[in-house]
Amino acid sequence: MRYAVLGTGVVGRTLGGKLVELGHEVTLGSRTADNPAALAWAADTGGGTGTFATAAGSAEVVVNAVGGQVALAALSAAGADNLDGKVVVDVSNPLAFEDGEARLSPVESDSVGEQIQRAFPHARVVKTLNTVNCEVMVDPARVPGGHQVFVCGADAGAKEQVTALLGEFGWPAERVLDLGGIRASRSVEMWLPLWLNLMRRFGHAEFNLELRSAR
Amino acid sequence: MRYAVLGTGVVGRTLGGKLVELGHEVTLGSRTADNPAALAWAADTGGGTGTFATAAGSAEVVVNAVGGQVALAALSAAGADNLDGKVVVDVSNPLAFEDGEARLSPVESDSVGEQIQRAFPHARVVKTLNTVNCEVMVDPARVPGGHQVFVCGADAGAKEQVTALLGEFGWPAERVLDLGGIRASRSVEMWLPLWLNLMRRFGHAEFNLELRSAR
Repeated sequence: MRYAVLGTGVVGRTLGGKLVELGHEVTLGSRTADNPAALAWAADTGGGTGTFATAAGSAEVVVNAVGGQVALAALSAAGADNLDGKVVVDVSNPLAFEDGEARLSPVESDSVGEQIQRAFPHARVVKTLNTVNCEVMVDPARVPGGHQVFVCGADAGAKEQVTALLGEFGWPAERVLDLGGIRASRSVEMWLPLWLNLMRRFGHAEFNLELRSAR
Repeated sequence: MRYAVLGTGVVGRTLGGKLVELGHEVTLGSRTADNPAALAWAADTGGGTGTFATAAGSAEVVVNAVGGQVALAALSAAGADNLDGKVVVDVSNPLAFEDGEARLSPVESDSVGEQIQRAFPHARVVKTLNTVNCEVMVDPARVPGGHQVFVCGADAGAKEQVTALLGEFGWPAERVLDLGGIRASRSVEMWLPLWLNLMRRFGHAEFNLELRSAR
């Protein structure tokens, strides 16, 4: 499969690297074609690099791995035409910093997942993986137990395709919980404040939640 | 121990009933002394009833089991003098309904836990148990696994006391995660939207999260 991974931060580089490892054709997209982090990543992994637009244009699936605050800007730079009809996997969180404090924006009455779907109505947006650290995203076995991830989005076929991708990452289908439409992005994005507190408490980011149910 | 449980909804009645069962002296507080739900509960359990003020006045520990939207009103009716120096256990969520949709208010930049602590600076507020259904609050063994609850608040002694109470309910101390000061109420209150989506998905409320950590 041909993937565009938008974003050259640790999340984009980690997801992109794993996708290359899995045998996919990957272009890491950034604002400029000569982004040094992207070039170093390409030298390391054998993946390709390009602008947001060239990456998205050549891809079958687009992964949004830039921060939630800049997701719309990155996807606009990628170009609506380059997203039309494609699965867009949004793994971002609406993390903002105000006076050095972590805050969420948008929050509660909106979400990055919904913003993207509204802005690109012909993209098949699936929100997933934003509830775990990127090392756990691509290697869930780092954390013991039957911990889970979520998917949500309007397009059932897109969610199936993303569930299969999650399977390649190491998440068995029974540990991928479908929360319904893209509006559920609000609920998974609002997990972040608790995740941040738990990261402080554990002293590291390699943890996840396992839902336990009476029946 | 003498407990006041403020609120005659299912959360208050369930917590109050469990406290009576555990041998505590419990007064279920409501706006009026002749609340029918409170009187029926008292006939059932052997607990006492009273106004918010008489309940809080006679108690050593006050449990806020009214909804987050009316918590300040209930505690104001209880009276600041009746809360001074006491442990106030807040189990509420800031759930509001707008056009039939579940919403949170306050959210993100504030929380019910913080509102209560600000309004009653001499109360020793501990936020806890709001992340689970009330049946699970008082009987965690209904849900399999090592699932957890949280405490937060400024007063370490109050958190210890609440952790002991949680132990009486069936939560071993190692499954009570201290998230720090009362500000962490924001993060546990923001769990609610995901909890609501999961309740829809599971089709019942008897579930909880177990945090799994790499180390």
